[in-house]
Amino acid sequence: MGPLRIAIAGLGTVGGGVVRLLKKNEKLIEKRAGRPIVLTTVSARDRKKAKKAGLDVATWVADPRDLTKRKDVDVVVELLGGAEGLARQVCEAALANGKSVVTANKALLAAHGFELARLAEKNKGHLLFEAAVGGGIPVIKTMREALAGNEVSSVRGILNGTCNYILTRMSQEGLSFEEALRQAQALGYAEADPSADIEGRDAAHKLAILASLSFGTRPDLNSVQTMGLSRLTPMDFSFAEELGCRIKLLGVAKKTAKGVEQRVEPCLVPFGSPLANIEDVLNAVQIQGDAVGPLTLVGRGAGAEATASAVIGDIMDLARGAVLPAWTLPAEKLQKNKALSAKDSMGRFYIRLDVSDRAGVLADLAGALRDSSISIETLLQHGRAAEGKTVPLVIVTHETNADSLRRALIGLKSLKTVRAAPLALRIEGENHA
Amino acid sequence: MGPLRIAIAGLGTVGGGVVRLLKKNEKLIEKRAGRPIVLTTVSARDRKKAKKAGLDVATWVADPRDLTKRKDVDVVVELLGGAEGLARQVCEAALANGKSVVTANKALLAAHGFELARLAEKNKGHLLFEAAVGGGIPVIKTMREALAGNEVSSVRGILNGTCNYILTRMSQEGLSFEEALRQAQALGYAEADPSADIEGRDAAHKLAILASLSFGTRPDLNSVQTMGLSRLTPMDFSFAEELGCRIKLLGVAKKTAKGVEQRVEPCLVPFGSPLANIEDVLNAVQIQGDAVGPLTLVGRGAGAEATASAVIGDIMDLARGAVLPAWTLPAEKLQKNKALSAKDSMGRFYIRLDVSDRAGVLADLAGALRDSSISIETLLQHGRAAEGKTVPLVIVTHETNADSLRRALIGLKSLKTVRAAPLALRIEGENHA
Repeated sequence: MGPLRIAIAGLGTVGGGVVRLLKKNEKLIEKRAGRPIVLTTVSARDRKKAKKAGLDVATWVADPRDLTKRKDVDVVVELLGGAEGLARQVCEAALANGKSVVTANKALLAAHGFELARLAEKNKGHLLFEAAVGGGIPVIKTMREALAGNEVSSVRGILNGTCNYILTRMSQEGLSFEEALRQAQALGYAEADPSADIEGRDAAHKLAILASLSFGTRPDLNSVQTMGLSRLTPMDFSFAEELGCRIKLLGVAKKTAKGVEQRVEPCLVPFGSPLANIEDVLNAVQIQGDAVGPLTLVGRGAGAEATASAVIGDIMDLARGAVLPAWTLPAEKLQKNKALSAKDSMGRFYIRLDVSDRAGVLADLAGALRDSSISIETLLQHGRAAEGKTVPLVIVTHETNADSLRRALIGLKSLKTVRAAPLALRIEGENHA
Repeated sequence: MGPLRIAIAGLGTVGGGVVRLLKKNEKLIEKRAGRPIVLTTVSARDRKKAKKAGLDVATWVADPRDLTKRKDVDVVVELLGGAEGLARQVCEAALANGKSVVTANKALLAAHGFELARLAEKNKGHLLFEAAVGGGIPVIKTMREALAGNEVSSVRGILNGTCNYILTRMSQEGLSFEEALRQAQALGYAEADPSADIEGRDAAHKLAILASLSFGTRPDLNSVQTMGLSRLTPMDFSFAEELGCRIKLLGVAKKTAKGVEQRVEPCLVPFGSPLANIEDVLNAVQIQGDAVGPLTLVGRGAGAEATASAVIGDIMDLARGAVLPAWTLPAEKLQKNKALSAKDSMGRFYIRLDVSDRAGVLADLAGALRDSSISIETLLQHGRAAEGKTVPLVIVTHETNADSLRRALIGLKSLKTVRAAPLALRIEGENHA
């Protein structure tokens, strides 16, 4: 078989990593692929980037859309990022032209993954995206192939290394959110504009992809309930510790008889859970299949080399002809997702309140919760407030649903004794539900 | 495409699980495979087993070798077990007849995996064996496909659930080896004859398979240095704890400039290592790739359902035509393995001795170690012996090699003050070397 000819659109961190790895392991890759993998063209904003990556500058084109028309390209590797604009145009044009696409672009897949898969099938190309979730962790391949005999009931994970780094620092060093974020930025783990990470949007994109693969549904980003990190304080970490838990930003997708639950939020995770001990920038995914039971994959969720490992794994599958439909099933068989309503989203919750320390406070709180049919499992209060000051108080609820919780939080907030909007965090079980 | 027609040889625990899972998820499997997967024939010693598994008894044949000739069989699923005899004959005949083979038989693969792969290629069939290592954990697929762009430098893991259960009980409850083994047997985690598990042979088979996939070499079981559990005592677990470690039976394969190291032995593993916290019957594998970094997979390493999940994953790959060479590379490209010599096998070691508690003991011990050029990092001794009794003493060495250690152990054993053969355990680093 002749060489597989690839083009790379975007020579940022990941693109540079892919170029380096292709070169470093060139012989090994050719031996395993049974044919050479040749980088015929690259596109980057600046010609210098191509030069810097050690590429012959003759292979550079300015507009990545030009890659999609070339006769000397079998596979376009899209590493531009973003759900719309150039990235989308490049992927659509490449697929429409019968080429295959390898991408790490979770935003694009979460928004347009169904349409892209359909386009790939129509034109007999392939769409592969192992690098879009969990960096170097082969979670997509595992769900699409290894677990193909399983009915998957849930998937959950630590899907954003930036957030996990911030939470690890807050937990281990008692830093404030702002301090931990600054540290992450100083180390290059968080971007200058960190909002996509810390607000949970990046993890939401990844979760929508995992849910689609798990349940045979079209990616449904709009149904992902998302909450970011910015309201967490050092106090929450010490209360969590007291409750035998760490705080982790988890993406959780569950299939229930009433619909699919998808949520990304900081959760209390018991020490005994494998997810509780995933630290710093590591990612982890737990899949619950009816046959395999719980399966946990842990590795580097970001970084040039780990992500390049996943991109090249996809390219190798194309080179060796071992490729399946993007979302496991042919696109037309993917069902529209039915989202679980808040009323059916069950859980136990941690509620932190700032209250005036005076007689009758507890009766007020308990009343507000009772009005939403929520019963209290644990109540923690330490110390007493100085005159006119507030004191933090934590309530752990018995099992309730997210709609009752929402109503309870409105009730609590309206109490005179409650001085700021309460913070509610879900308590995620040690094992899958 | 027509149905994929499979035959199952062996209806024991795993075979029964495969039959049940095929039936339970029949619709899902057909949807994902794009074609039905039909069980046309089974073979088991006893016709009643086929009936018990809910199969039409008309599909039963007495001799599994008969499955290999049938025209209504595309894939033979070999679940008989054993490196020789029927299992080998069935796999060889099936491949020779141009059928594909799916097997969970690690003993067979470790002994004859190279020849079987060659036979498969010659006859344009496939040989798949995800279930042979790590039960439901997709470690074979991960190494063969997802990490195909990586140079793998080492792989290590907890590969035997029976041993891990025994070690967990010894560690958590202070049981003796014999007590923990009896408990494992009572729960069905250990067989009546547990020797293949507790002597490390089962893990050695699995390690030989992983090493072959990692390094592109032919499986080389004879080079696996293997030590079992039977000499461990509750005392070793408390000394290990004092040193910040747990004791785990690890399989470790490393590629070095001087050859490939393969060993299965109880090791001290620091608390901080992901492997230290894998408990009970769980298995875990850590792979170190040059691009992906460390990747850890954790799941059920045995049991009917988890193993069936892996078997059916392989069958699905065959049904979907996404199949690669058994050992990643075409068989003729696999190199003969060059085993690392003991002199080049570096490590730190824990040595437990029973010594007479009298003056000059330490000088004797230190002398014996010095004679083998081993220096002492830590020495632990608690309490004193009663007159005429011995006292346990633990030495932790600085880095040395396995040959020096062997000589030192002979020297130590020959000392008058040392009353029993010393026990030496390797200390495995927190991270991959």
